Amino acid sequence: MKDIKLVLTDIDGVWTDGSMYYDQFDNELKRFNTSDSFGIKALKVLDIPVGILTGEDTNIVKRRAEKLKVEHLFMGVRNKLKVAESLCKKLNITLDQIAFIGDDVNDILLLQQAGISATPAHSPDYVKKHAHWSTSKKGGEGAFREFVERILTENNQLDQALELILEEFRNAH
Amino acid sequence: MKDIKLVLTDIDGVWTDGSMYYDQFDNELKRFNTSDSFGIKALKVLDIPVGILTGEDTNIVKRRAEKLKVEHLFMGVRNKLKVAESLCKKLNITLDQIAFIGDDVNDILLLQQAGISATPAHSPDYVKKHAHWSTSKKGGEGAFREFVERILTENNQLDQALELILEEFRNAH
Amino acid sequence: MKDIKLVLTDIDGVWTDGSMYYDQFDNELKRFNTSDSFGIKALKVLDIPVGILTGEDTNIVKRRAEKLKVEHLFMGVRNKLKVAESLCKKLNITLDQIAFIGDDVNDILLLQQAGISATPAHSPDYVKKHAHWSTSKKGGEGAFREFVERILTENNQLDQALELILEEFRNAH
Amino acid sequence: MKDIKLVLTDIDGVWTDGSMYYDQFDNELKRFNTSDSFGIKALKVLDIPVGILTGEDTNIVKRRAEKLKVEHLFMGVRNKLKVAESLCKKLNITLDQIAFIGDDVNDILLLQQAGISATPAHSPDYVKKHAHWSTSKKGGEGAFREFVERILTENNQLDQALELILEEFRNAH
Repeated sequence: MKDIKLVLTDIDGVWTDGSMYYDQFDNELKRFNTSDSFGIKALKVLDIPVGILTGEDTNIVKRRAEKLKVEHLFMGVRNKLKVAESLCKKLNITLDQIAFIGDDVNDILLLQQAGISATPAHSPDYVKKHAHWSTSKKGGEGAFREFVERILTENNQLDQALELILEEFRNAH
Repeated sequence: MKDIKLVLTDIDGVWTDGSMYYDQFDNELKRFNTSDSFGIKALKVLDIPVGILTGEDTNIVKRRAEKLKVEHLFMGVRNKLKVAESLCKKLNITLDQIAFIGDDVNDILLLQQAGISATPAHSPDYVKKHAHWSTSKKGGEGAFREFVERILTENNQLDQALELILEEFRNAH
Repeated sequence: MKDIKLVLTDIDGVWTDGSMYYDQFDNELKRFNTSDSFGIKALKVLDIPVGILTGEDTNIVKRRAEKLKVEHLFMGVRNKLKVAESLCKKLNITLDQIAFIGDDVNDILLLQQAGISATPAHSPDYVKKHAHWSTSKKGGEGAFREFVERILTENNQLDQALELILEEFRNAH
Repeated sequence: MKDIKLVLTDIDGVWTDGSMYYDQFDNELKRFNTSDSFGIKALKVLDIPVGILTGEDTNIVKRRAEKLKVEHLFMGVRNKLKVAESLCKKLNITLDQIAFIGDDVNDILLLQQAGISATPAHSPDYVKKHAHWSTSKKGGEGAFREFVERILTENNQLDQALELILEEFRNAH
């Protein structure tokens, strides 16, 4: 059981199934799944911050990060390991204290170094082999939620997170 | 067999598969399934009103509710149990006379209290255990229709609803 | 083997999987599958006209019908049987000479009367039982193409259609 | 093992699952999968150019081709074999030195002539029989990536491509 101080995540292929919708003009869409927002919420009530590391640079991800109040957002990232190291330094933690989920070749360097690392179910074997385990769900089907649930379950924190969230709903109007 | 006076439903993860499409500007989309509109139609010909309870607050759901002539629409709801209790009071019915389908943690409090409660097939076990049963279909694949069909079947009302709807088509131009 | 003079088709749940995408403003989308366009093309080279019968009334379907050069388009239809009868009269054919595919309750009356009738794989049993057979594919996954392929195969016309289409490509620039 | 000098690809049904999204106005969307971009990237680091041959003529594909820096783009193509022959002439290579993936009837003539030809998993049998093999993935699910991976694997070039790409990430900021 690792003491995780930060959860980092890729977007395309993790929060989505890798789909990129192009229109006839200048627009693009991504399809997120609200199921994953429970993962963010569970980390939030346990005071574990979340960071996004994505190679793309879109207003789409910026808006999604704002909606879910994600603490750290890095877009247009080429070297995810370097950015993670720099963030660790700033937060005064080590790479061993972060959990990271990514699905493709540009995630390999960080998958190799993170304290806990996973890929979604659909990742190719030559990426999977660099991670500790894979989720049973594919990207966009709740892979991020499953990633968080498994980490919290292994630390006996999932029930606590659930109860804190339910308490918020009970007290809401 | 319960005498159901009101059917309440969550939206994201029930009328949809949880997908939220974000674009590069200020827009968002949800994907509904026209299959579910039969559920609404069947309740309408039997004079059973429908209500939507969703944590989101979007024009998307408002338009869909108008299209299907849903009687009660509550958006931006934090505590679904409280809103349901308040609606019951207004309609002079009890929580035991409502049927509710929801798929996630923010539905648990109402799933526990409704006369009939169900989750779609994809719900996590820690939500499912608070409902009476689960549909065989996932959200967005007709889970709401199946929910209504099962309730009407158990009350021997499905054939009646079907015949009333067919009669409408026969008499239409 | 029936001598089919006209192929009629529903749209939502046949050319699509029933999905209706709503945005935050005033827009709506449907997702077609280019696979089905081969069905239209095969009928066209055999001089068998196609007609669309849909309960919805959208610019979406109008544009798709124009793109595929569908001969007859009826939108906002409440009673599909009446519209089919009226079209048969105009074309001087009988209901027994049309093939129709539809997936839901509003298709039942015409499914019962058409010379050949089918539903996509996902239709509920209380609709399927009014059709002669069901495709193995669901709506939006090529159900319409499969419907046309099976009719042409039973009439030994599929190979002819394929050869005529290939000849067009061979002669094109 | 063939010495491939050029990889050609269809778009709809290969880079997508054949879906075409129509809206109420004048817009259309296609859904690509970022997974396939690894295929392009792997060919690029090995200096093997890529060409798109599509019957459609849309700004959608133009933008996607630009994003992925695809070398050759032909849209509105009726006779893919003729266009391929003309491109081969220009590049001073033969049809036997190209690899082509396409999924439907308008791809048959080129599937028959290309040095390596494949269809995605979902292609109808009367198209598949003209290709050398089929990918295990459907169009839009990474069929193009799998096509490239198999060709490179058979030429013992996949590991080299992976290492070159990883080296780029290592050296990036």
